[in-house]
Amino acid sequence: MDGAIPADLLAAVRSERPLIHHITNSVTINDCANITISAGAAPVMTGAPEEVTEMVAAAGALVLNIGTLSAAQVEAMLAAGRRANDLGIPVILDPVGAGATGFRTATVKRLLDALDIAVLKGNAGEIGVLAGTGGSVRGVDSGGVAGDPVETAKECARVTGTVVSMTGAIDVVTDGDRVFLVKNGVPAMDRLSGTGCMASSVTAAFAAVADDYAVSSAAALAAFGRAGERAAAGARGPYSFRTALFDELAGLTAEDLAGHARIEER
Amino acid sequence: MDGAIPADLLAAVRSERPLIHHITNSVTINDCANITISAGAAPVMTGAPEEVTEMVAAAGALVLNIGTLSAAQVEAMLAAGRRANDLGIPVILDPVGAGATGFRTATVKRLLDALDIAVLKGNAGEIGVLAGTGGSVRGVDSGGVAGDPVETAKECARVTGTVVSMTGAIDVVTDGDRVFLVKNGVPAMDRLSGTGCMASSVTAAFAAVADDYAVSSAAALAAFGRAGERAAAGARGPYSFRTALFDELAGLTAEDLAGHARIEER
Amino acid sequence: MDGAIPADLLAAVRSERPLIHHITNSVTINDCANITISAGAAPVMTGAPEEVTEMVAAAGALVLNIGTLSAAQVEAMLAAGRRANDLGIPVILDPVGAGATGFRTATVKRLLDALDIAVLKGNAGEIGVLAGTGGSVRGVDSGGVAGDPVETAKECARVTGTVVSMTGAIDVVTDGDRVFLVKNGVPAMDRLSGTGCMASSVTAAFAAVADDYAVSSAAALAAFGRAGERAAAGARGPYSFRTALFDELAGLTAEDLAGHARIEER
Repeated sequence: MDGAIPADLLAAVRSERPLIHHITNSVTINDCANITISAGAAPVMTGAPEEVTEMVAAAGALVLNIGTLSAAQVEAMLAAGRRANDLGIPVILDPVGAGATGFRTATVKRLLDALDIAVLKGNAGEIGVLAGTGGSVRGVDSGGVAGDPVETAKECARVTGTVVSMTGAIDVVTDGDRVFLVKNGVPAMDRLSGTGCMASSVTAAFAAVADDYAVSSAAALAAFGRAGERAAAGARGPYSFRTALFDELAGLTAEDLAGHARIEER
Repeated sequence: MDGAIPADLLAAVRSERPLIHHITNSVTINDCANITISAGAAPVMTGAPEEVTEMVAAAGALVLNIGTLSAAQVEAMLAAGRRANDLGIPVILDPVGAGATGFRTATVKRLLDALDIAVLKGNAGEIGVLAGTGGSVRGVDSGGVAGDPVETAKECARVTGTVVSMTGAIDVVTDGDRVFLVKNGVPAMDRLSGTGCMASSVTAAFAAVADDYAVSSAAALAAFGRAGERAAAGARGPYSFRTALFDELAGLTAEDLAGHARIEER
Repeated sequence: MDGAIPADLLAAVRSERPLIHHITNSVTINDCANITISAGAAPVMTGAPEEVTEMVAAAGALVLNIGTLSAAQVEAMLAAGRRANDLGIPVILDPVGAGATGFRTATVKRLLDALDIAVLKGNAGEIGVLAGTGGSVRGVDSGGVAGDPVETAKECARVTGTVVSMTGAIDVVTDGDRVFLVKNGVPAMDRLSGTGCMASSVTAAFAAVADDYAVSSAAALAAFGRAGERAAAGARGPYSFRTALFDELAGLTAEDLAGHARIEER
């Protein structure tokens, strides 16, 4: 994919500044709010049943992240998701820890059944579990897939009817037909809690200004990964890397992204 | 206002180290705890109905922040607020997102009706909505007021019977009669999640050692804004700014604040 | 204690990378996740009744932290703790704010009664309250113990049947018989929210690879304290210290710890 495409989407996020409604976990909720701002969008976090359908109506995208799931939160996700579907607002689902417990796996399946999910953004283990082809998840960490990663992601996209965005050393984004391999990013991103959740927030910001969610998802991962590459340069460990990651995404220029996005179409 | 006044209040916070009880949102709760320590006070966060009335009795001020509101949390706020009122402990209300949804607006009105709120600390849009003179709020961001900002803040103070502390490029603090304009601060504070919530925590720390909440609220915003000015010097982006903001508030001397507080009485 | 012992345990954490299940507070939950990674282990945070018994079965240790307690959370703690006990997985209890309110004190006693707690990790005030010999707690801060700190910790260990790990300027770790004094650490750790909670996470990571929880708890505090010593060198305030604390724990070598752990057996 030509670097101009992610660059133009980044510029669009910054000029439109879409509101990104998150129903998310309590571990990385602050990270998600701040990375949304760094991407150029505006975050709002609420799972209150009294207001989610009203709030989501003002949003450009909705993030559902099951990192610290509760039964009440599932109901709020369903209500907000249905309203988003009615209004044509893209819904991004992060199936954190699917496969680690029956509750998580069943909840993801319930959300996939009830809602029209635009992008399913997970790690390899989670996507393998949801594809039904085999994946391993311990806690919230990927233990990898049983078979070929690209075929796993494609199968998951076909089974779920979503764009699958599978993160890893090389990210795989596919709608079941087209496949984008995103080669931006650094290993330091795996040694920090919340980078997966943050990737979902950035994916949502890009989806809010796009029509083609496979393209926007690949672009979002390229932008986030490129910020990581720039951040790794001066970092002395995981937390100075974290500081630089937010700084670099906020300061990432469309020119830099155009020149350094590494997205290959298969 | 002479710079000696905020400087003396800062010194008083540090010598008395008041306990600041927060019932607050899950997005910025860690920021609020740490900024309270940086200001020189001691934070405690709890909204458990089993203990809020006991905990608040040991506090110097109570912060009610509706950023991630729930019905159960409102009940805890009412219980803690009533006890604080009985004991003469100042209550600071941060109406995060009032105007964005009916649930938030109605909850703020309910809290204002049921409790004696010492300081209502919000952004321009929120204060305009609560003044009844018009304000615009999207998610948790201010879209500005319909009329003159100072008149809006004064009207809100009169309508609600509180000291209104309205943050913006220039902060407006008023009890409906006196008006303080606080000109400290930098734009970088708007590009970070949680600075509004942190401003409420600092406002509470200063209120805990003061009798005149208009003076203490202006002083708190001057101190927080001054820390922001110092932090902006070396920052490379929003997260290195954030790191420096906490460092600089913790290291802010009474002398520096006395010399650089910019509070004008209108 | 010879420095080789904590060094070997640190190396074991990193090679085994145990999963540490936390049921914890919303203030420092992100800090706890990231410090667990910095120690070399893998965090997972969930208190959902639908999954805690399934999740804990995959864990190497379970942390119960009552910083923002709720009635529902207590039930999840009891369920997860019973399962951990059945499976021989060590349970670390952090009695945050015990003594500050009746709800907290009663909950800690209930957890101690119902569960086999391996390590009770608290500040001096909390341990004094739980020993029954007198301690003072305001909010979540220690006001110290009534009598001799070492005797207080020993009495608490005897009364509760746990290894007591009492943090302070000098940490006291005891099973009621043996006593380890840990002299690593710096005062900057007290000027940051969450260092107590983080110490519990590191304690859990070390417990997960050990049989002797008095030894592993002392080793964990030495490692965490040593990271703090290294972090203090370049810090300009509490938040640059915080950044360095995570960086330094992540980068701490077994050699450095072997040479600088200061654990005295009494």
